[in-house]
Amino acid sequence: VSGFVWIVGAGPGDPELLTVRAARVLAAADVVAYDELVSADVLELVDARAETFSVGRRAGCPTPPALDSRIVAHARAGKRVVRLKGGDPHVFGRGGEEARVLHAEGIPFAIVPGVSAAFGAAASAGIPLTLRGVSARLTIATAHEAKDLEHARSFARTLPREGTIALYMGVAHLAILGEALVREGFPPEGPVAIVSRATLPDESVAVGTIAELGRLRAVAPAVLILGDVVAERVGAAAAPAARATFFASDACAPPPAAAPQP
Amino acid sequence: VSGFVWIVGAGPGDPELLTVRAARVLAAADVVAYDELVSADVLELVDARAETFSVGRRAGCPTPPALDSRIVAHARAGKRVVRLKGGDPHVFGRGGEEARVLHAEGIPFAIVPGVSAAFGAAASAGIPLTLRGVSARLTIATAHEAKDLEHARSFARTLPREGTIALYMGVAHLAILGEALVREGFPPEGPVAIVSRATLPDESVAVGTIAELGRLRAVAPAVLILGDVVAERVGAAAAPAARATFFASDACAPPPAAAPQP
Repeated sequence: VSGFVWIVGAGPGDPELLTVRAARVLAAADVVAYDELVSADVLELVDARAETFSVGRRAGCPTPPALDSRIVAHARAGKRVVRLKGGDPHVFGRGGEEARVLHAEGIPFAIVPGVSAAFGAAASAGIPLTLRGVSARLTIATAHEAKDLEHARSFARTLPREGTIALYMGVAHLAILGEALVREGFPPEGPVAIVSRATLPDESVAVGTIAELGRLRAVAPAVLILGDVVAERVGAAAAPAARATFFASDACAPPPAAAPQP
Repeated sequence: VSGFVWIVGAGPGDPELLTVRAARVLAAADVVAYDELVSADVLELVDARAETFSVGRRAGCPTPPALDSRIVAHARAGKRVVRLKGGDPHVFGRGGEEARVLHAEGIPFAIVPGVSAAFGAAASAGIPLTLRGVSARLTIATAHEAKDLEHARSFARTLPREGTIALYMGVAHLAILGEALVREGFPPEGPVAIVSRATLPDESVAVGTIAELGRLRAVAPAVLILGDVVAERVGAAAAPAARATFFASDACAPPPAAAPQP
């Protein structure tokens, strides 16, 4: 009997934002190889008898091979292996590289899509990603290379001047990015939001302008949303308290007394 | 007692690709207002006692108001209302407009993100949306306005020349779009994939070049993926039979009997 590998998107962080399929294969897995963007809450869905290990990149270490060799070994041994990745496996998750290795090795696999971080962030923060008359396009990119002004300007130059931009990024170089955006012609007063730790209990949302980027609160992992849609933010539940009231299992529960209870 | 409205992303079509939260609130809803992009399979998750109605746009009719008045009325009557939308509510779903009306009306609501169509299509078709050395960016747009060559060229002109483009669109004007892309400088031999009815039992994937766009099989709703990543497609699953065996392709899948059954 051959094993099988599911490359699974874990979504933005909240375990309820896994897909039904992701939750099912995760609970049934013999082996779970996860990366650092997967939240601890999601990992709690793994069966206690499963073997789990991290295959995350470590800062300062060389880029690991496209696919951890333990994954191949477990699949060859007949195990049900889940390769669990933050967000969606096909967006900045190296899922494509891993699939290619599995294919070359002749190991059967499937990809389970997930809610990418921008969508989780937008839902929590109440920011539409497209909106009639405001934005008809979403660009998802990563600003990891924007570490100094020169690189940040090169990056900013390639960004579209229309629609909504969602940047998946660390939080170390926001001031540089803000300066680069302005120098490359983005309006200093252009609205931005930083959604930190989107959909997790300690999520926070900071709204400001491009010129203010370096002063906005940001905690990794963060999604930077740039565009006029940010100014259209409506009062969806941004505060943890509101989330706890309306989302979680006890969540749809009355604010303690009145809200509906699915 | 006030009601509550969940604006819920139903994902790309397969009911297992709803989020755990979406499935939960859907099963518990008193009222479900759905649009035409929501698959019949997803609607089967609704409780039989719930009231359901379509609020989809109809071809040839004027654009309906931002929020169907029945949704407001039911919420005011204390009901648990789910506004169910294809994909993610914040991308081409008018979710932002609906949220704004609910906010203005003082009706408590929450947004449940979903797997947007591009991610479902990419997972099923085995096409990475970003890939190191190939694409570092995903642009999501809609080509609905590209109905004649002039409009299509205007649209094509605004598209980025790098990264991956996912177009959410009808299937009526593919030949025009292909011609417009070439006239605006996209390479005729540039790889494209059309994923029709992604993640549904009758999903199909057609791969070709920009020049061939008008001759590729397309069935609505379709996602057009444009970019060098298409050439990196690895054997994930297109056929319905393979889907039943956990998305593996004929190439990758074990015989049905051998596949693990979570």
